[in-house]
Amino acid sequence: MWRPFFQPYHLIIVQDGDPTRTIKVPEGFDYELYNRNDINRILGPKASCISFKDSACRCFGYMVSKKKYIYTIDDDCFVAKDPSGKEINALEQHIKNLLCPSTPFFFNTLYDPYREGADFVRGYPFSLREGAKTAVSHGLWLNIPDYDAPTQMVKPLERNTRYVDAVMTVPKGTLFPMCGMNLAFDRELIGPAMYFGLMGDGQPIGRYDDMWAGWCMKVICDHLGLGVKTGLPYIWHSKASNPFVNLKKEYNGIFWQEEIIPFFQAATLSKDHDTVQKCYIELAKQVKEKLGKIDGYFVKLADAMVTWIEAWDEQNPSSASATTATTATNGPAKK
Amino acid sequence: MWRPFFQPYHLIIVQDGDPTRTIKVPEGFDYELYNRNDINRILGPKASCISFKDSACRCFGYMVSKKKYIYTIDDDCFVAKDPSGKEINALEQHIKNLLCPSTPFFFNTLYDPYREGADFVRGYPFSLREGAKTAVSHGLWLNIPDYDAPTQMVKPLERNTRYVDAVMTVPKGTLFPMCGMNLAFDRELIGPAMYFGLMGDGQPIGRYDDMWAGWCMKVICDHLGLGVKTGLPYIWHSKASNPFVNLKKEYNGIFWQEEIIPFFQAATLSKDHDTVQKCYIELAKQVKEKLGKIDGYFVKLADAMVTWIEAWDEQNPSSASATTATTATNGPAKK
Repeated sequence: MWRPFFQPYHLIIVQDGDPTRTIKVPEGFDYELYNRNDINRILGPKASCISFKDSACRCFGYMVSKKKYIYTIDDDCFVAKDPSGKEINALEQHIKNLLCPSTPFFFNTLYDPYREGADFVRGYPFSLREGAKTAVSHGLWLNIPDYDAPTQMVKPLERNTRYVDAVMTVPKGTLFPMCGMNLAFDRELIGPAMYFGLMGDGQPIGRYDDMWAGWCMKVICDHLGLGVKTGLPYIWHSKASNPFVNLKKEYNGIFWQEEIIPFFQAATLSKDHDTVQKCYIELAKQVKEKLGKIDGYFVKLADAMVTWIEAWDEQNPSSASATTATTATNGPAKK
Repeated sequence: MWRPFFQPYHLIIVQDGDPTRTIKVPEGFDYELYNRNDINRILGPKASCISFKDSACRCFGYMVSKKKYIYTIDDDCFVAKDPSGKEINALEQHIKNLLCPSTPFFFNTLYDPYREGADFVRGYPFSLREGAKTAVSHGLWLNIPDYDAPTQMVKPLERNTRYVDAVMTVPKGTLFPMCGMNLAFDRELIGPAMYFGLMGDGQPIGRYDDMWAGWCMKVICDHLGLGVKTGLPYIWHSKASNPFVNLKKEYNGIFWQEEIIPFFQAATLSKDHDTVQKCYIELAKQVKEKLGKIDGYFVKLADAMVTWIEAWDEQNPSSASATTATTATNGPAKK
């Protein structure tokens, strides 16, 4: 189903779980396949920052990719159709979103002002109409919505059938729940912030990998004056995961997020933090200091965040120093 | 065209311009009609705060209304159709928006989580799922979009044909351009903040009446923990106003908004400002202090803001002290 849309691109498959199992990749794709043994071999002791038996392992692929744009998708996601019945080329829409500026500093009521047939409305300051570079494009899901276990349990039959024909910028200073099911980003602009944390095997938490990346990434984008979009494209999410299994993975996260979110809402970075790496290392420090009090897990996670950046810079020697930051020059001061 | 939708409600018509002209209201409507002579008679010297020969005069109607919900609409707006061809009952959707909570403290990627078929997504903190009371519902426009004069001139043929099936909360801390063309609000929650300023006859600015109200209102809603929504319903905006006339009205605003918006983004209110009136008087003080430096107009406007609140309290003696504020208790601290 995805063949016509994915075949032109380079695939990186990160195999979750048992490395002795062989994954069969259909013919005609240009791909690299990594299992746990590969990760251990490539990263050595730093492989400890990559989760095992959890979808969080995908971020290893972000690290070893050599491409500018990354698209990440779950294995239960298929091609969706727009209201006219046409198959949606999700990648094409993500690339459009990433190539086109964002508007994080002021809200445009007609949604994406750069889209054909739209513009900035009356009252939108002209100095902000250039927008900001877009770092992340968060796509949505038709059919099975991305609900947590309690909501899945309460509404087992709920399906998302509403196609909202919009792309919008998540405003500066606003956090959102970033889902990794249908997600694209500019690796050069924000790659090192897309760490999916320590989840799954041996960890007290799961299903917060993408959320963690989303919170860290958004704080850093806000600081560096980069934009984050959400909305189109939709994919078709075929099956709901087991809510009982999910609850077990999630329950710590459900408690912890009540403190994690205010932590990220209050986190501040300074002028010296002018690259994604520096911002991320500073966030790791603050995580250890402030979230470490909630549970020892966050001390381990903070260390893993540092290891992740070290591994990233090893794998991407040219970007280690060159990841230039686009510091916000036209955005209003952070309150 | 509006008859089936407006006939059940009470209409207040504020006549703009020459009071000797007689406005004919079609039969069967329950209405009050006010012209400039009425405004002068009712408010006495305080009538100076109500604009003359400008759409800003409409806010006199907000002041003298005795209803809980206000809907305000321009005379060139007609009933729009949804993609299925059904006529949209704009009022019904506005009332739904106002009766249903907002989510200003965290962004929900599936838009309005209270809508049928939708909910809060994974990663949305449970403590914030009660939401906030909704004070304002900002509706959109099909056909002629609400563009400023320069955009009208550059894109004279642009029409808005995209029906975006969504209602969303404008996040806390984010300002937006509020258009008065298709707007509803809860008069008890936010009425005194809906002052449309000094515009038109004798003033150096026009077409910023709704914008001014929107900026003041949003700062106050953010402070008091109230929600503001934008999106559905759409109306059909039939004709573009003359861009040359508009440019003459707007040009000062186009310059000034570059300073006004950072001013409102940085404006802070304290715990003592626990009613809309107190917040508004404090904002008037800050406008005089900080924007007065740009132009003497803002000193006059600040005085008019105070006069407006005095007149509001005279016309609404019971609400003067009773306008209780819903102080944010579950929202994260303002950064």
